[in-house]
Amino acid sequence: MPSESFSPISWKSGTLVLLDQRKLPQTKSYLQLSTMEETISAIREMVVRGAPAIAITGIFGIALGAKNSNGEATPEGKEHLIVMMQESRPTAVNLTYALRAARELVKDISSWIEIASIWEKFGNKLMSDDLAGNLALGANGLSQFNLNQDTFHIITHCNTGALATAGHGTALGVIRSLRDAGKKVIVYADETRPFLQGSRLTAFEMLEEEIECYIITDGMSGWLMNSRKIDAVLVGCDRVAKNGDTANKIGTYNLAIAAAAHSVPFYVCATKDSFDLKLESGKSIPIEMRREEEVTRFDFIKDDLGGIFLKPGMTSPIGARALNPSFDITPEKYIRSFITDFGCFTPSEIVSRLKE
Amino acid sequence: MPSESFSPISWKSGTLVLLDQRKLPQTKSYLQLSTMEETISAIREMVVRGAPAIAITGIFGIALGAKNSNGEATPEGKEHLIVMMQESRPTAVNLTYALRAARELVKDISSWIEIASIWEKFGNKLMSDDLAGNLALGANGLSQFNLNQDTFHIITHCNTGALATAGHGTALGVIRSLRDAGKKVIVYADETRPFLQGSRLTAFEMLEEEIECYIITDGMSGWLMNSRKIDAVLVGCDRVAKNGDTANKIGTYNLAIAAAAHSVPFYVCATKDSFDLKLESGKSIPIEMRREEEVTRFDFIKDDLGGIFLKPGMTSPIGARALNPSFDITPEKYIRSFITDFGCFTPSEIVSRLKE
Repeated sequence: MPSESFSPISWKSGTLVLLDQRKLPQTKSYLQLSTMEETISAIREMVVRGAPAIAITGIFGIALGAKNSNGEATPEGKEHLIVMMQESRPTAVNLTYALRAARELVKDISSWIEIASIWEKFGNKLMSDDLAGNLALGANGLSQFNLNQDTFHIITHCNTGALATAGHGTALGVIRSLRDAGKKVIVYADETRPFLQGSRLTAFEMLEEEIECYIITDGMSGWLMNSRKIDAVLVGCDRVAKNGDTANKIGTYNLAIAAAAHSVPFYVCATKDSFDLKLESGKSIPIEMRREEEVTRFDFIKDDLGGIFLKPGMTSPIGARALNPSFDITPEKYIRSFITDFGCFTPSEIVSRLKE
Repeated sequence: MPSESFSPISWKSGTLVLLDQRKLPQTKSYLQLSTMEETISAIREMVVRGAPAIAITGIFGIALGAKNSNGEATPEGKEHLIVMMQESRPTAVNLTYALRAARELVKDISSWIEIASIWEKFGNKLMSDDLAGNLALGANGLSQFNLNQDTFHIITHCNTGALATAGHGTALGVIRSLRDAGKKVIVYADETRPFLQGSRLTAFEMLEEEIECYIITDGMSGWLMNSRKIDAVLVGCDRVAKNGDTANKIGTYNLAIAAAAHSVPFYVCATKDSFDLKLESGKSIPIEMRREEEVTRFDFIKDDLGGIFLKPGMTSPIGARALNPSFDITPEKYIRSFITDFGCFTPSEIVSRLKE
């Protein structure tokens, strides 16, 4: 559970307060948002990230949209808010589910004031449910480890911790739960280019928790699996198809291939909202392409960070092109099991477990 | 062949002139070195990089050492220079071979002036031999491609171009040779963290040559191989063992595993000097561990680069640890063939081809 000092999302006096994760680890600064447009832009600009955190933020965002609306709340008016928010991050299925539920909650209501209040309450409920889900997920994850062992070496990708959720985290939640069970955990955090969520956020959380952690570049995992006995790779996910194919932060797929080549078990940590049975396989998951400058210019290091600004031409020549897919798809064959808030199971068990 | 405007190594009026590759692509500045100590530090600090370029630099370095020595050149005195230089980059077998030959050349000579002149000539000979070798390698590489095809999509790692050699390059040399044979080549350059040789140097060379090139992060190759038909992965190498296991820049191994998972042929481009039959396998190749700050702080972006300086705590929290192996070992099973200046052959043919 995050200490109050870095609460990633909170609702205070009718405004949404977000920890600006782009500025971590160097600055803990908060943005106070009072419009839906600001909230959409915060999601797009990665002020907040992580599928569960984005879903919660999205609901508070439409609550702000409702609060700022005048006149009667027509079905079109309500739908407009929901569609605008959905487009802020099309890959995030948690957000899709949350918005669908939000639509249902207000379908018979035509007062914006009432709608704003319902969505605000729903946002708060998502927060507490997410935290409870993460704690259950972490506890369930222990079953995948031989607990006679004292020390575990674990590779992670991106950030899947308290910062990506309402607290505790998914993949980092399992690590926290192992530590809480008295185990020594040594974490190797993929730095996760281009946005460096591993270096900036996972290393930050691990230092705060005093869990031993080494940052590695995304190309070092194969070397590491040959050099040290790695017990598991733990990643989060943005979306899981019916067959188990999993969309997650770019670089996850390369890590899964490396794990398979070294017979290191590869686990996807997911809450129920991440599964999307409407998708037969990963082939139907759209991949968001982001700005080339994130790759060519380390674009997250902006001039609002203490005056540091990587100029064009500094880390790649002026005129250099780049590709920047935000996600990749890890085929189900690479996934040992899903660790979730409702148990652990293999890709082939998804359908039956979700119908229980 | 590099245009005069970015000649990486040259010997001018008794001094060694090196293009400071740490400052590319933003600044083309040269260091003029007049001592062996400066040369060792330039190799350590990656002013110059690439196994062939390091070997040439090392020989000019001991020539400077000889030039600055007084009295009689004793066997111990000569050996001291050679050992000091060898330790600047223990993984680089080209340097080992070159130093061994340099030792032999002066074994009966006790005048430092004469030794300096012999080593200077030897350095110049290595330069012209390397260029000729690269041109042969590039031409030989064409045999691995179906030349009925018009366009080739190729992934590279690190920089293996004119900047890493005396000219033309090894893996980039094959790409230049394909282009010279009238083919369209689309290059995807792994950015190659932590030192970004792909972003900074490969993209720079490709822009100068007007070859279409996209930078990708080191974790994107699996996604790319699933998204576009990739014809080949071409990498260079620092050292090849008798069985074909290959040491190359960290991240090469992950790329090889990804290529195997997608049945994309993986080629290692090497000149004769890269093969070390004394090593039975990659297990005996020492892996140099470099400073953690290169990973945690993007340490190559120094304050001498136009005042830009990434402070501790900017891209990872203060106190964060990292691992930083400079190389990894790609097992021979992942290598389709070696493309060399003396032909193309599989790992199992190394011994017979080197004895010819």
